[in-house]
Amino acid sequence: GRKVLIVYAHQEPKSLNGSLKRVAVEELSKQGCSVMVSDLYAMQFEPRATRNDIVGCLQNSEEFNYGVETWEAYKRGGLSNDLIEEQKKVKEADLLIFQFPLYWFSMPAIMKGWMDRVLVQGFAHEFPNCYDSGLLQNKLALFSFTTGGSKEIYTKGGISGDIRYLLWPMQHGIMHFCGVRVLAPHICFAPEYVSEEERKEMLIAWAQRLKTLWKEEPINCSPEWYFE
Amino acid sequence: GRKVLIVYAHQEPKSLNGSLKRVAVEELSKQGCSVMVSDLYAMQFEPRATRNDIVGCLQNSEEFNYGVETWEAYKRGGLSNDLIEEQKKVKEADLLIFQFPLYWFSMPAIMKGWMDRVLVQGFAHEFPNCYDSGLLQNKLALFSFTTGGSKEIYTKGGISGDIRYLLWPMQHGIMHFCGVRVLAPHICFAPEYVSEEERKEMLIAWAQRLKTLWKEEPINCSPEWYFE
Repeated sequence: GRKVLIVYAHQEPKSLNGSLKRVAVEELSKQGCSVMVSDLYAMQFEPRATRNDIVGCLQNSEEFNYGVETWEAYKRGGLSNDLIEEQKKVKEADLLIFQFPLYWFSMPAIMKGWMDRVLVQGFAHEFPNCYDSGLLQNKLALFSFTTGGSKEIYTKGGISGDIRYLLWPMQHGIMHFCGVRVLAPHICFAPEYVSEEERKEMLIAWAQRLKTLWKEEPINCSPEWYFE
Repeated sequence: GRKVLIVYAHQEPKSLNGSLKRVAVEELSKQGCSVMVSDLYAMQFEPRATRNDIVGCLQNSEEFNYGVETWEAYKRGGLSNDLIEEQKKVKEADLLIFQFPLYWFSMPAIMKGWMDRVLVQGFAHEFPNCYDSGLLQNKLALFSFTTGGSKEIYTKGGISGDIRYLLWPMQHGIMHFCGVRVLAPHICFAPEYVSEEERKEMLIAWAQRLKTLWKEEPINCSPEWYFE
């Protein structure tokens, strides 16, 4: 059976994001997948990249360099436990689903902190092993999120621009950088401004998509997909 | 005298980011500006958007909605003290400088949390007052950051794409959305891979730019600037 990690960032289980997460757990479990969930707010996940992420002595305690110190700590098994736990889940997973409400054209800080802290050098990439030769090859990622604004404003002529513009840092800059192939995003536009009926249809559409997810081809994660 | 708020996110005062911050404080003070600094790691700034940001009762404690609750709390003066403090600084400032190392094509989570939590509806925007009619008009913002990768990889033909692509969510999606006009970014590429001499030149160049900063015109913060 395939393994899926859902990294989930919403404060409220009753929210649409909470329901989308539950639908994914149910549908994927029904398929025989083993599903892990990192419920970041419930875990009170630490988003700040600090010296606390390294257990024991630093390589250079005179001038703290987070990237260098976490790389070294990773190699000697000296990262903090919460990071080791998350890395174990990532390592096992065939698919990473990120479920969140869009905050400021990006993911909420608590999820950005997951990226900043979990995907350390040595584990997820190690120069020159990045992009197509990143260390998390043979995995897939899917960004599933809700927006405040309508679909119309997130178009080329719309005031917020094509929704793909804001996917570049997340999909290309993070996932592709680590060698992960990216499936098309799943976007629920403006759920707060539609009827209860339409929100239910959003959940059904997500469950439907998940039924044939493993047959999907990754997107071509290059500037053409985002900007042309 | 003009007022400047530097929102600064680096763990190490001896880093280049720390030096860039100090240079800005010195140069702007010398000009007669009053300079405020939010040193996010030193403040142990909270990046997580949670119920703790609202003092007292919630509008709807059955189903927590962060955007709605912080908007209401703002209107009745019921946001947590750390947010009120930051909003005071933003309100006073003519110019916001964001100083940080680029983490994953974006700002570190601790700074993303500052955006998520400080720029609440009612304070920074209030539909339909967004973009050119956002509530923080007559302010300027400048993103000043360091990168791990070289200038060459952040070009249209380079593997990481034009550096402007990743500025879209930060400059347009956040600052422009709040009505803030954006000055050209200040980017120090790959300081870890250049000589001590070249790092000193980077500090001098920043001080030089700041001398004539108030004469600069904001960029045209529209898709053309970013993607053409």
